[in-house]
Formats: sequence, C-alpha cells, structure tokens
Amino acid sequence: MDIKIISGGVTAAMGFKAAGVHCGIRKNKSKRDLALIVADRPCAAAAVCTTNVVKAAPIYLTMEHIKNGQARAILANSGNANACTSGGMEAAKTCVDTVAGALGINAKDIIVNSTGVIGQPLPVEAITTAVPALVGSLSQDTTPAAEAIMTTDTFAKTIAVQCTISGKTVVVGGIAKGSGMIHPNMATMLAFITTDCDITPDLLSQALKDSANRTYNRISVDGDTSTNDMTAILASGAADNVKISEKCANYEIFLAALNTVNLHLAKEIARDGEGATKLITCHVTGAATEDAAVQIAKSVISSSLVKSAMFGADANWGRVLCAMGYSGISFDPATVDVSFCSDGGVISVCKKGQGLDFDEGLAKSILSHKEVTIAISLEGGTADACAYGCDLTYDYVKINGDYRT
Amino acid sequence: MDIKIISGGVTAAMGFKAAGVHCGIRKNKSKRDLALIVADRPCAAAAVCTTNVVKAAPIYLTMEHIKNGQARAILANSGNANACTSGGMEAAKTCVDTVAGALGINAKDIIVNSTGVIGQPLPVEAITTAVPALVGSLSQDTTPAAEAIMTTDTFAKTIAVQCTISGKTVVVGGIAKGSGMIHPNMATMLAFITTDCDITPDLLSQALKDSANRTYNRISVDGDTSTNDMTAILASGAADNVKISEKCANYEIFLAALNTVNLHLAKEIARDGEGATKLITCHVTGAATEDAAVQIAKSVISSSLVKSAMFGADANWGRVLCAMGYSGISFDPATVDVSFCSDGGVISVCKKGQGLDFDEGLAKSILSHKEVTIAISLEGGTADACAYGCDLTYDYVKINGDYRT
Repeated sequence: MDIKIISGGVTAAMGFKAAGVHCGIRKNKSKRDLALIVADRPCAAAAVCTTNVVKAAPIYLTMEHIKNGQARAILANSGNANACTSGGMEAAKTCVDTVAGALGINAKDIIVNSTGVIGQPLPVEAITTAVPALVGSLSQDTTPAAEAIMTTDTFAKTIAVQCTISGKTVVVGGIAKGSGMIHPNMATMLAFITTDCDITPDLLSQALKDSANRTYNRISVDGDTSTNDMTAILASGAADNVKISEKCANYEIFLAALNTVNLHLAKEIARDGEGATKLITCHVTGAATEDAAVQIAKSVISSSLVKSAMFGADANWGRVLCAMGYSGISFDPATVDVSFCSDGGVISVCKKGQGLDFDEGLAKSILSHKEVTIAISLEGGTADACAYGCDLTYDYVKINGDYRT
Repeated sequence: MDIKIISGGVTAAMGFKAAGVHCGIRKNKSKRDLALIVADRPCAAAAVCTTNVVKAAPIYLTMEHIKNGQARAILANSGNANACTSGGMEAAKTCVDTVAGALGINAKDIIVNSTGVIGQPLPVEAITTAVPALVGSLSQDTTPAAEAIMTTDTFAKTIAVQCTISGKTVVVGGIAKGSGMIHPNMATMLAFITTDCDITPDLLSQALKDSANRTYNRISVDGDTSTNDMTAILASGAADNVKISEKCANYEIFLAALNTVNLHLAKEIARDGEGATKLITCHVTGAATEDAAVQIAKSVISSSLVKSAMFGADANWGRVLCAMGYSGISFDPATVDVSFCSDGGVISVCKKGQGLDFDEGLAKSILSHKEVTIAISLEGGTADACAYGCDLTYDYVKINGDYRT
C-alpha cells in the first residue's frame, strides 16, 4: 500500500476549489475570517461533531444537512462561534442560504461551522455581504481557506496524499484549525477533508469515524472539549475508482490515506497548541487493550504537571507515573518503564516502576527539542497507542487570560 | 446546632500535642520538613487515601496500620513523597519504628505519610536522627507541624472548632497541606484531624468518608490526583461525651463540626493552589441530583480556559457553558443562567443559555477580587453543590516548569 504526500491540501482532489476572505468578523483586516470549499458535483459526505452537551447552532444545522449523506460545499468562519446566542440558528441559515444562492446549489448541500468567541451574535451581514467576493475568489489554492479558519493558530494546517485504488489515483486532502479548547471526544476540532474517491456515504461515514478516533480523538491541548468541534469530508467520486461499498481491501487503502491526512492535521493542531513550544507524543506499549493504551497516553499528555515539566525540560517522570495512575486504567506500577526520546537521543528514567540514576544534563538536552516522546512500556499485554499534546507555558495563560479583547 | 471556631488547630482537642522540625530533607534549613502529632491515649482512627493506582509506600503502610481502627500518632515529612523507589516500604517502616521507640508506643499505632518529589529515595537517616528532637519539641502549638507538611504552599493551614455533644464540649481541629497535584478523588491531600470526641472507629470512618466527599473531593487545583493523598483522623474520647456508636443526632453534630474543619482546610488548599491569585467557587443550583451538581461544578473549576479567564478577570462565560457541556452530565443548555459574584458585587452574564448585554467594566471589577463565585442555575431539579478551585497563572507554570531543582 503506497501513500504519497503531495501538495494542494483541501483542493488537491479532483474537482475541488476553495477560498478565504476577510469579511469583517475579525477586527484585523489582514486576517481572513470566512472560508468556503466547493465541489464541482454532488458528493458523498460525512461529519463527526462535538459530544459537548452545549452545541453551537451550526453544528445542529450541519447534522440536519448531512443526514442524507450528501453535500457539496463547506462554509466556515472564524472569530465567532455562533454558540449560546438567540437567533444563532437563523443566522447560520441566512449565511448558508446566501452561499447556496451564489453557488446555484441547494442550501441543504452545505456543511457549515463557526469558530471563535462563544456567546456573541454572529455578524450575519458582514458574512452575506462578503459572499460574492468569497465565491468569486474560489481557486485551486488551499491556503486562503486554511488561513480563514485559524483563530489563535500560529500557522495554517494543510496536507494532501495520494494512493491507488483499483488502478486509479485517489487523492485525499484537508485543512484544519485548532489551538485552544482542544480535547476532542468522539469528535474533532475543525478539520475539512476532500477526496475524489468514489465511496458510498455509509462507508465514508464509517471511515471518518474510525479515523477521527485514531487521530483527532488522541490529541489534547487543554482538556476542554469545544462546543464547535467538527470534522467533515466530501467525496466527489471524480477519481473514477471502483466504487467502495464494503469494507474491502480498497476501503483499507482509502482508510490508510485518510488516517495519514487526519493524523498529520491532528499532530499539527497539538504542535500549535496555544502558547506551546513543543509537540509531546506519549507512546504506550504493552497495554492490555488499545483503549487502555489510549487512555493512559491521553492522561499523561493531558496532565498540567507533566506539561509544565516538559516546558521546563525537566525530566520529572514521577508526574508521568502519577498521571498514569489516575487514568482509570488498572496496571501494575512495578512493571512500568519510562524513557524520554527526541532528536537529541533517548534516556531511560524509570525501570520497573522505580527511578534510575540518569544524567540530568542529557535529559534536559533531550527534552529541549521541539518534538519529545514519552515512551511508556507495561507488561500487561501487546496493545500500543500514541496520544499527542503540547507543553503548558506562560503564553497559554497569557493568551487565555484575556482572549475576548 | 452550634459550631464555634476556636484557636489551637490540630492540638486544640484535649490530649493532643504536635511538633515540626527541620531534619534535612529540604535543603533550606529554615524550612521545617518533619511533623508529628501524638495523642496521650489510644484513639479511634480512620483514614481515606488516594485512589491513584500508583500509591506511595507510606499509603500502603498506613492502610495496614489503620485496619484495626486504632492509632495514636501521625508522622509526616515534606520534600520527598517516598513513592516509586525501591525500598520505600522499608524506609517508611524504619522511620515509624524509630518514632514508636521514642514515644514508647506500638509501631502499628502510627499513621505515616510523605509529600514532595516522586521517585527519589527517602533520606531515612536524616529522619531517624531528628526523631529525639522531634519528640522533645511536642507541644500545644499547632504551627510547627502545619508548617512542616508544606511543600509549595505559601501559608500554613490550620483550624479548630468546638461543639456540644451530650452536654460535653467536643473539639475537632486539623492541619492540611496542598498546593499542586490537587484533584482529590474519593480521597484528599494531606489533612490530619484530631478530636476528643468519643466515637467508635466504624462511625469515625464513615464520618471521615462522608466529610471528605463533601469537602476535599470538591476541590481541584490542576486536575492531577496525587499518589500520596490522605486525610487521617484520631479521636481520643477525652471529651467524655456519650460514646457515638450509631448515626444518631450526636453523630450529625460531630459530622457538622468535622465538615466545618474539612471545608475550611479544603478551601484553604484551593485558595493556595500553586501560583493562584484567587479562590474560585462554582455554585450549581437546580440540578437533578447533588452528584450532578458536583460534577458540573468540578468541571467548571477544573477548566484551564475558565481558570485562565479568572486570572485575567475576563467574564468569558462561554467557557463556563462549554465546561458544563463536557462534564458528562446531561442538562438543557436553554435553561442555564450564569452570574459572577464577589465582594465587588453580582453581575448576570447569561440567561436561559444566551448572553446578556453586561457592563464589562463592572464584570472586570467583580472578577478582580480575591474570592470569586461562579453561580450557575439550572432548571433540572432542586439539588445544589459547590466546588472550589483557583485561577491558572504564569506562576503555576513557573513553579512546575522546574519543581525538582
């Protein structure tokens, strides 16, 4: 199975265009705040959305629109979450209707979402006024749309891959945003994926759920599950492969390509966590089940104490054991090995649940790199899993001490 | 039922003495690091300990010693957690044996715990060498013991109350420590309580569990449940009240006195959270059950985003709704009212799940006080509960970026 990274992001797959403009939700005029992704034909579509009891209005509208497994466009704005306001649903509908009119498609074929401050009315007129310019700037360039969904993100997140299914080249590409309020739970932050693969809506939905569980649901920035989390996918079928309608070998190829895209975007979200200086991976091996490995790894990368220690490049492995211990998973502490790894090397700090004498200078140097792995080995079974997070820094507090102003 | 706060802390009850010395675990010679509390007679005793799978050695030793419902002394050190080391159990036993010898009591009548860095061998000799001085300095002064269990705490935590049971004055007093790694779960941070109440070990144990659930288990500083959490109580019976041996009215009086002590200490721990500048109380009313109210309140005070907003005195109530939404409790978002309260006043910011126009200047001034309450009202029932936390600040990151050095 060959999966190759290519350029083009969310417009890499055949038949997709995207755009991103500044419509005025954000005060800074150089900051794009309205994104659109459009397919040249009806697509199979699927979405997984936040499990938060408090859901933004566009989440409800999208859940309704996606019921028939079809869509053709994705509309998203940054700077305002359209959550917890009166008239949020009407606001979302007005925006969608305007875009549908400009594109000449059915409003029910539009997936919509918003990201930004909760509880302030969506500036509908700013959005509807900008729709002609938005539609007019649709192009093969993935960057404007990727930028338009950014909030506190420091860089745009985009990727595309290609694989071969039944002799045809199939492309999967996407964009994502996410920097704070990141602790997806059976859902994701904003990630929009396009593919020219021919696949039924049912299989597409299953693939997206499977993939989200193994990618977005394994990252955490701050333990806060957003009201607006969503990952959505459009599959145009333009690649002309043998249509995927069951969990065959071709499905596995597509799923692998989709996982590659989603894992890249998920890790980019963790790396770009609010205020973060480094990407932290926790790799748990020797667990009884994959779920147990995931739960332990997520507990470690979510610990404020572990995250602060990683910021300080302090090899405080006791906090790793502590976080494992309250993960909810049962294990024998006397079988736990812990080491820290990066491009700077590998250092074992705990063997069979007890501290090793180690070189503090080497540990500090290893932990000072931009990507650090906390490797945990248990003797409880053969399952393994990774979770991804970032360090906790002064800047996280600074960014979130006064986010609204 | 009259419960009156009195002076004296952990030595206020008849027949208790305490001491705290510097034995050399901490490098700073002005920092006490070894505490002892002793009763003049055998006491009914109970303890609730951490639910963390990774438990410190002294926790195991105490669980064994407490099995018979009796104890007479509590030994505790700061600066070293005696967790995740080889020989931790032997180290704890050696310390306990030495103290037992010096006091002329059975080693099995000593409750022991440690708090500090995980994974470094306990400096046993420093402790045993200091035992004569420790025992020699036992007095009615609660302060040295309260200081000796402090780690990153910025002030000593001590309180005592008196009530009347069957015509006799009964005193309950205690000391506690805790500043980071605070997210007790069916257990607490270090809190040591003494009373001269006459009560059976069974009832004492039930009262302690009930009280811990309503006090220590409702605070969080950073979401990290420690390996060393413990609250322990000694009841000497010296007050000569009619022995409490069932859940009668006298039991309720004792429980109310115990709750007063534990709630005070729990709030002091939250107020003194690592780096914290203010105490945050979340009061949830109108919940279906008390458990639901607790779970929502704990979710709110545990949210890094809410905590950062409180640091910045930013009335970002959307984050409150978001944290309620992922609490795991089902409720109707359209029935939620939120207001912020402090000595500076009260301001409503959200009504029926939607934002209100409010005076940002007034909100900032209210949130700038040292004690802030987030008041949440639902329409799901009549149950209510409070949870207690603190803000997330630059100093939390600073303290924990390099805690070991």
